[in-house]
Amino acid sequence: MMIDLLPDERIDDLQCKGHQIIQNPNMFCFGMDAVLLANFVKHRRDGMYMDLGTGTGVIPILLAAKEPSDGTCQFIGLEIQDACAEMAGRSVRLNDLEQKVRIDHGDIREVSCNYRKAFFDIVTSNPPYISGNHGLTNPDEPKNIARHEICVTLSDVIEAAAYLLKPGGSFYMIHKPFRLAEIFEGLLANGLEPKRMQLIHPYIDKEPNMVIVEGVKGGNSRIKIEPPLIVYKEPGVYTEQLLATYEGEAKK
Amino acid sequence: MMIDLLPDERIDDLQCKGHQIIQNPNMFCFGMDAVLLANFVKHRRDGMYMDLGTGTGVIPILLAAKEPSDGTCQFIGLEIQDACAEMAGRSVRLNDLEQKVRIDHGDIREVSCNYRKAFFDIVTSNPPYISGNHGLTNPDEPKNIARHEICVTLSDVIEAAAYLLKPGGSFYMIHKPFRLAEIFEGLLANGLEPKRMQLIHPYIDKEPNMVIVEGVKGGNSRIKIEPPLIVYKEPGVYTEQLLATYEGEAKK
Repeated sequence: MMIDLLPDERIDDLQCKGHQIIQNPNMFCFGMDAVLLANFVKHRRDGMYMDLGTGTGVIPILLAAKEPSDGTCQFIGLEIQDACAEMAGRSVRLNDLEQKVRIDHGDIREVSCNYRKAFFDIVTSNPPYISGNHGLTNPDEPKNIARHEICVTLSDVIEAAAYLLKPGGSFYMIHKPFRLAEIFEGLLANGLEPKRMQLIHPYIDKEPNMVIVEGVKGGNSRIKIEPPLIVYKEPGVYTEQLLATYEGEAKK
Repeated sequence: MMIDLLPDERIDDLQCKGHQIIQNPNMFCFGMDAVLLANFVKHRRDGMYMDLGTGTGVIPILLAAKEPSDGTCQFIGLEIQDACAEMAGRSVRLNDLEQKVRIDHGDIREVSCNYRKAFFDIVTSNPPYISGNHGLTNPDEPKNIARHEICVTLSDVIEAAAYLLKPGGSFYMIHKPFRLAEIFEGLLANGLEPKRMQLIHPYIDKEPNMVIVEGVKGGNSRIKIEPPLIVYKEPGVYTEQLLATYEGEAKK
């Protein structure tokens, strides 16, 4: 498949079934966050998936890549930034995933106008982590929109997920641990029960710098906390645990 | 100090400044939980401390033991089981701590009748972990009262802490991780912001079996998650991290 690249764009290998992704370093490039989130998702056969704020489209592309060849899941990635959504659409075509993955250009705060209520089995999101746009000189810049809560807040994302999910459907989000109480509060206020969680620590003796949470619509109150995921055993050297996560990714 | 022991009672060394505690194996004996909780507390000079459901009195005795010799903190341990409160009172005398530690016999659900509102700087609790009294043939048995929510629920404990604490005061609780969402929900509903948390894992690759949370009355929304505490490196062999915790205890 020949795909045109725009100036500054490059094609990166996703190390998963030969899938690739187009990225532009002037925009937000996906990080380990997106890969860990995609790995944390428990797949559902024949599920309808929605990724809120999909950016490069890496999450729906990775999730589609992990599906068995006879799977019939459908994936939508919703992105507010026009140029980003267009680029993600080309990544979908680059991987011949047009039958499985659709990138929509739109606003997370308007999902109730654009999608059916309780239609999705799985909602994922790797949203902006930083509250507000304090001190930003260029709040319109693509990277800032991806990192700061300029176009969407944590509450907006959770409300959208709660609207989109079927009863029993799962919302998976990766975020900053210092906002954990706010995350739980938002999930509970929207009928999404926190059911599973994993903390990601750069080193075993350091505080976590990421948390992944699964909230289940209408679930009962009982959460499973996974063993911690430790990224490095020493500077620049990944733990076997992290490598296994990536290898698991590649093998699936 | 000579203290009378009742049948079946024994004196155990707390491995902290020579302090000892009276225990009765027919009742609930303190576990690692209480020691870890006491270690997690950030001390306040001249503070008023309350331990809800104090059992053997181990938590106020450990906290009092950690105080500098010129400290003027006061510690109360509240216990609903008469025989348990009486035994804890003898442990206080055994350690010559009558000027610092008082054991009250009473009900956590009645703190608003018996204590001044917003009078305490620190509230601690190692409450019963298990919801309800399902399947218990002897719900009156001391061990069952300590382990199951027979006399007090998680909500009762949190409400009592919120009543007792001054603005800016801290509530420290150790509990089961599967109830984390319920814990956060209860804290937030009672104006206690989750501010610090640590998960305790039996092994590095296992799920946590305890969680310690600090909630601050009227705190802002930002939580610090500590590095995980790992108990064993192999069966029967504690990690250096856990031993350092206990040694830190002994040295303070």
